[in-house]
Amino acid sequence: MSPIRNARVLFNAVPSEYPIPGETTVYDTTETIDVENVPLNGGILVKVLVLSVDPYMRGRLREAHVKSYMPAFQLGAPLTGYGVGIVLRSEHPGVSEGNYLRGIMPHQEYFITSDLTYMGPIQRDPRLKWTTYVGAAGMPGETAYMAWKEYSRAKEGEVAFVTTGAGPVGSLVIQLAKQDGLKVIASAGSEEKLQFMKEIGADVVFNYKTTDVREVLEKEGPIDIYWDNVGGESLDAAMEFAANHGRFIECGLITGYNGSIPPMKNPALIFGKSLSLNGFLVQYLRPKYTAAFEAEVVPKLASGDLKFTEDVSYGLDKVGDVMLAVQKGTNTGKAVVVVAEEEGEK
Amino acid sequence: MSPIRNARVLFNAVPSEYPIPGETTVYDTTETIDVENVPLNGGILVKVLVLSVDPYMRGRLREAHVKSYMPAFQLGAPLTGYGVGIVLRSEHPGVSEGNYLRGIMPHQEYFITSDLTYMGPIQRDPRLKWTTYVGAAGMPGETAYMAWKEYSRAKEGEVAFVTTGAGPVGSLVIQLAKQDGLKVIASAGSEEKLQFMKEIGADVVFNYKTTDVREVLEKEGPIDIYWDNVGGESLDAAMEFAANHGRFIECGLITGYNGSIPPMKNPALIFGKSLSLNGFLVQYLRPKYTAAFEAEVVPKLASGDLKFTEDVSYGLDKVGDVMLAVQKGTNTGKAVVVVAEEEGEK
Repeated sequence: MSPIRNARVLFNAVPSEYPIPGETTVYDTTETIDVENVPLNGGILVKVLVLSVDPYMRGRLREAHVKSYMPAFQLGAPLTGYGVGIVLRSEHPGVSEGNYLRGIMPHQEYFITSDLTYMGPIQRDPRLKWTTYVGAAGMPGETAYMAWKEYSRAKEGEVAFVTTGAGPVGSLVIQLAKQDGLKVIASAGSEEKLQFMKEIGADVVFNYKTTDVREVLEKEGPIDIYWDNVGGESLDAAMEFAANHGRFIECGLITGYNGSIPPMKNPALIFGKSLSLNGFLVQYLRPKYTAAFEAEVVPKLASGDLKFTEDVSYGLDKVGDVMLAVQKGTNTGKAVVVVAEEEGEK
Repeated sequence: MSPIRNARVLFNAVPSEYPIPGETTVYDTTETIDVENVPLNGGILVKVLVLSVDPYMRGRLREAHVKSYMPAFQLGAPLTGYGVGIVLRSEHPGVSEGNYLRGIMPHQEYFITSDLTYMGPIQRDPRLKWTTYVGAAGMPGETAYMAWKEYSRAKEGEVAFVTTGAGPVGSLVIQLAKQDGLKVIASAGSEEKLQFMKEIGADVVFNYKTTDVREVLEKEGPIDIYWDNVGGESLDAAMEFAANHGRFIECGLITGYNGSIPPMKNPALIFGKSLSLNGFLVQYLRPKYTAAFEAEVVPKLASGDLKFTEDVSYGLDKVGDVMLAVQKGTNTGKAVVVVAEEEGEK
């Protein structure tokens, strides 16, 4: 077989605000690969099937010298992120042709590696698609489940406020909070998203673009648990209308990813209300909760007892647009790019 | 016996910035009391011996409608705060003449009450003065000990940064951190205070008025535990130079008590570094830790194994000046006002 296209999505320039498809990231088709003969040097050749596009990726589109919790993407090189791929060839002990791997992989159609540090074998429940394994059954689902278990100290009858409640993290948080017997207030940015949040059990939903968060919390609070994916005004309002001993789960701050980071207006409320603010990265919680997640959450996603939505795009060339959509919140459901479809996948 | 003076310190006007002695609080000698004959109506008559002046009291000098974690002082009425008094007469079951009581009491020489909700009996170790029972052996000492036990998760070899390290809370925190085997960085605002922090074991001390906190933390950090009594620049710097999984104990925010509250500049570091920020009020920790505090801390204060300093003023008329000194940090050691001395007190 002759060499075939090996398209990639390259980090091309640091965005000043929102990422610009074709400018800050570019879809590149100049490379080819001979999948049958390319030397592996003891490694594996993987065909990428799906790639996840997540809010945190914006933070990696930065200058290399700027410190943060994840390394910057390398200018001129492919982006990397969560994905699922199938092994086409292997010289690596313990990995065989036909195995599926999930983990951090480059945004390109095929790649060769001998470093499996951030990848592991994965099996698909036939009722779920691979896309879900980078969504509700993957990192975002783990994020919601593990941090809720670790930090919420939820008690029946309490009130939770969940931001980005229609997203892959927030929507699972809503359902976990309802399972625990809480009243749930949830925010999102479109009618379609509000509808979905209602369907999965949220008691009070509102559109943060058209409704003042402070008015909602004043009426429906005080809140005992705040799930923060946004920061800024929502965080300030949540502190203002928090109950004493409120638990804040600090998961993200999308309002600050594409410009300056909004400050927290009144940190004195932290001791004034005996709040606890808990920041986390999901990788630190996995050792403690992975087994429980696989046993409790994934089967319920497959059976439909836990709901989720996906916003699937087809083709690696869509990554730039999807990244922008995720930053602006114009996607509905977990944003995933299908790079290659498998025969027989439901 | 004829009526005698019953001086009081009244809340007279809401300060716009720092409290102004004689204006925002006034010393008033217009009232008298006949201690032998005044009717008790089932209550007790207490002679106030010592009163504590604490940083948090500034927050109570506000308009009544402004919500906060402690009620506003009542305009025209005496201030209230921690104190120790002796019972001169009692019609209250379980309280006898000669008993000593500690708790929240009005800033006046004598008072009558039948509400013992916020007062309890107290016995003095003969090696300690009553002043210490509103300082190192009282609320500030409890604050340091109980929150350190509850939130620090201190491990040998870690680095702690303690603000207001020469004060009654900070100085005990320094000593607890050293007992736990930590490296301690401590800040204060005068040479005398730096010297004291050195004496009690701080490894690195600096004057926040003349030294850039960021330079110190960059050189001596990263920090695992931050004890925050100040907020503002120190809090921002502590977040910038925190280690992953850093624990922040949010005890106070003196930089914001006399003007606008400084915002937290970069709340994204909370999840970026997996920080936990724990706010608390000491009253919530007492049920869990009071017995341990009495058994572990008070005897060591009496024996000298734990060090403390006090800045004692004599006479109720000094309260206004002492309040201002505490807000400006010009006192050295725990600020206490002796209202009346007892014969035989060491």
